[in-house]
Amino acid sequence: MNIALDMMGGDYAPLEAVKGIKAFLTDACNLVPHLTLIGDQPSIQLLLLQYGIETNNITIVHASQAIEMHEHPTRALREKKESSIAIGFHLLSNGSVDAFISAGNTGAMMVGALFSIKAIEGVSRPTIGGYFPRENGKLGLLVDAGINADCKPENLVQFALLGSLFVEHIWGISNPRVGLINLGEEEGKGNILSQATYPLLKENSQLNFIGNIEGRDILMDKADVMVCEGFTGNVVLKMAESVYDIVQRRGIQDEHFERFNFEMYGGVPVLGVAKPVIIGHGISHATAFKNMISIAQKMIDTALLAKMETAFSK
Amino acid sequence: MNIALDMMGGDYAPLEAVKGIKAFLTDACNLVPHLTLIGDQPSIQLLLLQYGIETNNITIVHASQAIEMHEHPTRALREKKESSIAIGFHLLSNGSVDAFISAGNTGAMMVGALFSIKAIEGVSRPTIGGYFPRENGKLGLLVDAGINADCKPENLVQFALLGSLFVEHIWGISNPRVGLINLGEEEGKGNILSQATYPLLKENSQLNFIGNIEGRDILMDKADVMVCEGFTGNVVLKMAESVYDIVQRRGIQDEHFERFNFEMYGGVPVLGVAKPVIIGHGISHATAFKNMISIAQKMIDTALLAKMETAFSK
Repeated sequence: MNIALDMMGGDYAPLEAVKGIKAFLTDACNLVPHLTLIGDQPSIQLLLLQYGIETNNITIVHASQAIEMHEHPTRALREKKESSIAIGFHLLSNGSVDAFISAGNTGAMMVGALFSIKAIEGVSRPTIGGYFPRENGKLGLLVDAGINADCKPENLVQFALLGSLFVEHIWGISNPRVGLINLGEEEGKGNILSQATYPLLKENSQLNFIGNIEGRDILMDKADVMVCEGFTGNVVLKMAESVYDIVQRRGIQDEHFERFNFEMYGGVPVLGVAKPVIIGHGISHATAFKNMISIAQKMIDTALLAKMETAFSK
Repeated sequence: MNIALDMMGGDYAPLEAVKGIKAFLTDACNLVPHLTLIGDQPSIQLLLLQYGIETNNITIVHASQAIEMHEHPTRALREKKESSIAIGFHLLSNGSVDAFISAGNTGAMMVGALFSIKAIEGVSRPTIGGYFPRENGKLGLLVDAGINADCKPENLVQFALLGSLFVEHIWGISNPRVGLINLGEEEGKGNILSQATYPLLKENSQLNFIGNIEGRDILMDKADVMVCEGFTGNVVLKMAESVYDIVQRRGIQDEHFERFNFEMYGGVPVLGVAKPVIIGHGISHATAFKNMISIAQKMIDTALLAKMETAFSK
């Protein structure tokens, strides 16, 4: 197993990425994956040394360029062929590595995932999820978190299936409950999209559809997978993130609201592309990098992508 | 000035309505409006006596029926002609009263407002707003909060104008800032609807449009009026309401989060219909009723409806 990390992506790269690797290796059990670190070789080498990281299982691939956070995704990827993101996708697409992680330019990561890796056969639109903490310590997954602003009912059904498989195999929740985010509980409520999506979710035998869920249910442990188009999903996710900021600003100390710190979850996988691609927040610190490596490892360990391919071939 | 109250609407009617009237009259300045209380005459009379409410400025109109919370709105309004809601709209439409308030069946209130009162000329879809507390003690108004699940760009522009006039005249915020709820800040971001709405808001000379606002801005004091279709608006509002529940459950005492108790704001006006109609939460207590009477009084005092008519005739 070989996991590639973009060492230049994120506001605190490469330092926090190195600290994340250190933390990951410290906690890792016997089977440590090989790590391919892409970025400025001298700085990475120096940091690995400083942090006393054993380099037996590490390869450094030098990247002479980096895509900045606010560059135009498509243009940057096309023009910066020696950037860490471009090299990462090159290595992933030719099979040199098994997964690629970056906390860099989200747009460039999406473009790379969609155009150099391609979607799983049968998936018309890959998606990105958002995590929502629950009071009982569990997490919920919202799909789509903002990549697909306008959707068709079929897209939402696919998001539900991709999300269910992720939650089942990566979080170990069997038969995950799927809820359709809507403005009322009863069947028949909603906008044109949600009204048309409801029967499709209901009749899909691969899903454990529990019906509509409302805004008040999103922070509760009602559904494991919460489905909506990316417009509403993005607004809801960012509002939840802002609750953490308010709680912090007001000096409220509460274990549950601490978990609204979305940074601690690392990154979110691009669901529906044929290989594991994980995108982190720009503000990722060590824990986030550590968690992203763990998610990538688990996606490979559980053969999640093969399971998704099987599900979409049915 | 004559304000009508449905005394049978809401989970705690008529008791909490009477307590709300008591509180309103206690705090009222010299000019007290005449109140028309619609409902079961004997119970209302008894409660007024019990709470020592002076009845000089009060008329009781007996209603032998009541529309229950879960009845089908259109059917109930058609079949229960002697219900408090049907009588209220009858009195409002024939000019016997100047405003109508109810915490009863929301659907029946909307149907009554739209079909017996009609929209202001030029308004294609009336809307309902939701209130969002800010840390500085101010409020923001979100329109639409769930009545119009699918919208056209023109609808959103009208919601923005109706919301701006409400915020300016009822809350006294001059030149209120209008933000378009979106998944990114830059012009050009968004789904098809928000992309098409942006230029219309920008070019409208009656609006102080400040651009896109994101989910993270909804709880902040960024825009006074926040515009989106009713699907996203409803999900966002109900999620904010649930934050209050979580904070309460976790025993967190915080002045700001106390104001997430949406009950205290009373009700929301139906914006865009030709007369003041205010709809309360089913769980309305005394403070909510008191606040609803105040809002109705202010809508009449400031001639808000005439100002809306003028704005829409431009």
